[in-house]
Amino acid sequence: MEIYIARSAGFCYGVKRAINLAKKTLSKSKENCFTLGPIIHNPFVVEELEKQGLKVVDSVKDIKKGTLVIRSHGISKQEKEYLDKMGRKVSVVDATCPFVEKALAMLEILKKEGYEIFYLGDKNHPEVRGLLSYINNQAVVFEKPEDIPEKKYKKVGLISQTTQKPEVFKRSVEKLLPLCEELRVFNTICKTTTIRQREAKDLAKKVDLMIVLGGKISANTKKLAEICREELEKTYHIETAKDLKKSWFKGVKKVGITAGASTPREHIKEVVEFLKNLGE
Amino acid sequence: MEIYIARSAGFCYGVKRAINLAKKTLSKSKENCFTLGPIIHNPFVVEELEKQGLKVVDSVKDIKKGTLVIRSHGISKQEKEYLDKMGRKVSVVDATCPFVEKALAMLEILKKEGYEIFYLGDKNHPEVRGLLSYINNQAVVFEKPEDIPEKKYKKVGLISQTTQKPEVFKRSVEKLLPLCEELRVFNTICKTTTIRQREAKDLAKKVDLMIVLGGKISANTKKLAEICREELEKTYHIETAKDLKKSWFKGVKKVGITAGASTPREHIKEVVEFLKNLGE
Repeated sequence: MEIYIARSAGFCYGVKRAINLAKKTLSKSKENCFTLGPIIHNPFVVEELEKQGLKVVDSVKDIKKGTLVIRSHGISKQEKEYLDKMGRKVSVVDATCPFVEKALAMLEILKKEGYEIFYLGDKNHPEVRGLLSYINNQAVVFEKPEDIPEKKYKKVGLISQTTQKPEVFKRSVEKLLPLCEELRVFNTICKTTTIRQREAKDLAKKVDLMIVLGGKISANTKKLAEICREELEKTYHIETAKDLKKSWFKGVKKVGITAGASTPREHIKEVVEFLKNLGE
Repeated sequence: MEIYIARSAGFCYGVKRAINLAKKTLSKSKENCFTLGPIIHNPFVVEELEKQGLKVVDSVKDIKKGTLVIRSHGISKQEKEYLDKMGRKVSVVDATCPFVEKALAMLEILKKEGYEIFYLGDKNHPEVRGLLSYINNQAVVFEKPEDIPEKKYKKVGLISQTTQKPEVFKRSVEKLLPLCEELRVFNTICKTTTIRQREAKDLAKKVDLMIVLGGKISANTKKLAEICREELEKTYHIETAKDLKKSWFKGVKKVGITAGASTPREHIKEVVEFLKNLGE
């Protein structure tokens, strides 16, 4: 069996940075350390960090004293205000992904300059909820271009969640273009996402079976699986090597592996070990 | 023979306004009246106005005294400066198309805010030469998206000559989108152009022969002919009914007529008369 691993599979810059900051904080801090929601969308990494002492809380108000590591998705305006109010009682280590911070700067420009804002993304995703809170949710959030209301607009600003598909973003531009006088587009899809998706698509075209590794609630991993499935029906989205079934690989000659931005390198290695032990 | 005339065929708002202003000026003025280049791209209309006393000059410097009617395409920065210098010796009646004026305002915003400007248009067209003079020609002028250099851009502003094809404009957006971080698009194709092109295309689909009426140097008429020809090989671009040949219509059951923005209603009527006299 031939095994191909996508070059860009696994941890992206923002996730690596967040994990490293969390580990460093845990090793140094004498106080309780928290994250607001799981630090990344991978339950195994979260569990490992919990063992080292990181506490996951659902609400920022659960933190009365200690250190908060802000995860790569960022936090909302209201959460920021709470932390400011707590002052020195709660220290903050900010691991917000720089691409998310950049998207926020763009959103604020669009808001300030009076654009009607269209935001391609999942309205329940923490990145989206966080960012939109800074512009008082004054944006149309949509998941597919077909959902954009067909009417005339004057000044439209278009922006995207960092992990969306460039192809869907492109179709959103096409949908909006004839509807408005001015269309200002900030391409806020992060480069790693674009490259990872392109590599996954190319790989899915040349193998018999595709494994997409990453958290089931990870937006970018789900998108990767979607993209691979468009090319290859035999695409499996798994969280770890434990989810693999021998029966899938009967008659399979070429296997491709890719992994979401929140998947550690070791998880990929475990999948490779499993495949090697199949002995086909 | 069935004859179909596109609803939007003929004079657009900007052209009608320019002709009316020229006629009004000619009837009132006791001085010499000028235009810089033909007032519209239709030799017959120009000839008629010349008979009424309108003089066509090639350079603004040929006007030492009198009244200049600025045609719908507008004038360049240098020409404007010359006129300002001439003061009361040369009166100015400004018939610049409001859509062209709007495009200038957009171009100036893009220039001021530091965008790299891409301009879809014909660099030799007076509208384009005029507009670009106000931003010291600091724009990449291109006629097809394939000509846009493939490299990375930071802030790109995209704008169009008012008479370009929306479909080519759309493909230009698609070409630029993956190349730049920010893409700010001003859709400066005038609405009449868009509607006229769409109607011409629809008409060409349902007839056996298409007549496109308008000046041979008229940009918008040439584009109309191109669009019709994509749908129907039997498309004839003529300047007046005199160019029609009986032989074209053998076996033809349905004829479609459209006309450029600088074509008078009477010219369309003459074509209809010709067709009716064919007696088929």
